[in-house]
Amino acid sequence: MVYMMKLLAERPGEVIPLQHFAERFDAAKSTISEDLALVKEALEAQGSGMVRTYTGATGGVQYLPIPSPEEVRTTLEQLCTMLRDPSRILPGGFIYMTDIITDPVWSARIGEILAARFHAASPDVVLTLETKGIPLALMTARAMGIPMVMARREGRVTEGPSVTIHYISGSSRRISTMTVGLRALRRDARVLIVDDFMKAGATARGMVDLVSELGATVVGVGIFVATAEPQKKRVDEYVSLITLINVDEDARQTEVRPALTDNKE
Amino acid sequence: MVYMMKLLAERPGEVIPLQHFAERFDAAKSTISEDLALVKEALEAQGSGMVRTYTGATGGVQYLPIPSPEEVRTTLEQLCTMLRDPSRILPGGFIYMTDIITDPVWSARIGEILAARFHAASPDVVLTLETKGIPLALMTARAMGIPMVMARREGRVTEGPSVTIHYISGSSRRISTMTVGLRALRRDARVLIVDDFMKAGATARGMVDLVSELGATVVGVGIFVATAEPQKKRVDEYVSLITLINVDEDARQTEVRPALTDNKE
Repeated sequence: MVYMMKLLAERPGEVIPLQHFAERFDAAKSTISEDLALVKEALEAQGSGMVRTYTGATGGVQYLPIPSPEEVRTTLEQLCTMLRDPSRILPGGFIYMTDIITDPVWSARIGEILAARFHAASPDVVLTLETKGIPLALMTARAMGIPMVMARREGRVTEGPSVTIHYISGSSRRISTMTVGLRALRRDARVLIVDDFMKAGATARGMVDLVSELGATVVGVGIFVATAEPQKKRVDEYVSLITLINVDEDARQTEVRPALTDNKE
Repeated sequence: MVYMMKLLAERPGEVIPLQHFAERFDAAKSTISEDLALVKEALEAQGSGMVRTYTGATGGVQYLPIPSPEEVRTTLEQLCTMLRDPSRILPGGFIYMTDIITDPVWSARIGEILAARFHAASPDVVLTLETKGIPLALMTARAMGIPMVMARREGRVTEGPSVTIHYISGSSRRISTMTVGLRALRRDARVLIVDDFMKAGATARGMVDLVSELGATVVGVGIFVATAEPQKKRVDEYVSLITLINVDEDARQTEVRPALTDNKE
């Protein structure tokens, strides 16, 4: 049972055939099923994670990490405390947060919280634009058991044929390009867009446009930190985990709070 | 015990205080220690993963996923089979492998294999250059319980003060730049460089130079796929998991094999 839990927790989202356990332990499938039921019970008693079993030829067992409301609250409070550190304030009122995003433990926690918010939307791929969104998008995809796709700022020969769009980046009002390989994003894909930061929402909007250009469907937009202003973003609906209210460069103070409700217009 | 394994497997590399388990289960630390011993035994009997306990104020328990030689062999064979698929051949003899790198399950497996190869070198940070190395570097860092740092091609205000070097990129002989934030990489860091692909080794060499410019130390270079030719790379020593021997565009054939020994000059 310990090894069973290890396999499930290490491969969240993946459907592992019962056959795999049966071979590994040289046990009957019925014994494995009983053990799985106990694992499921233990997990659900702790309120952390969900075990789903699927029957049939492609059947097996799948583990989805679902942080409890208490875990979500604690994690977001810890992240807010870290973000309030005055040493994070950079010239221009920017906040240094790359260390949090690129830390595997924090990015995994953020990814699991985002994943839990979007299970109901049933995405089959997570899309982000290079570069800083990648760790969070990868960890969100991991917690949902689906692939991640990186849009790039320039096409590359190693991505094969691609679709490119132009969009107006919010702050500089500059025309930027965004491209994604046709091999990476199928036309019937259900896409969850994930990014680390949103101010006006121009980048997220660019990704929404890129997805529609391909004929695929956006089923959600998940953001780690979104600014309170401008209140009206260039995407209609998004979920953010933390709201950045204000950065006072002179007083060296950053105002952030967990964003507990969805942002809908 | 099931929940214990879940916590450990979900947070590889992280040192989790015994106190955390004691509070969670409302049990004495001695009971927790006994249960941990059983978890350790079960894991080691399966030959997969290592549980380390640390005593003292900062003490606790740490889980390191260590794939068995059998698991490593199977994973690398599966990856080679995928890479041989003729539909991956792109114009110019490039191989499409972005889907593998950005798949959380595959990137986690590759990261665990790389991590296991470098535990002895005791790195305290994993460095990569944007963009395609990021998923593998993040998963390697995760399996070692250390942070990941992304070097960028251009400096950004959100990274704070940075160090920039120029290097000659291998194929195009063009002068490129590479930059890393001073906040991200400390002068006393022990750096493991990870990248998805190596041909001449110019990018890896650029990262080695960037690290020395900062006064930090490179303790290893880990690459997912390295080409057989040129045999002489621009870094002296590296570990690659798969060797790309030849791509025959006309015959639509790709020759790859697991690289089981280290590449030293």
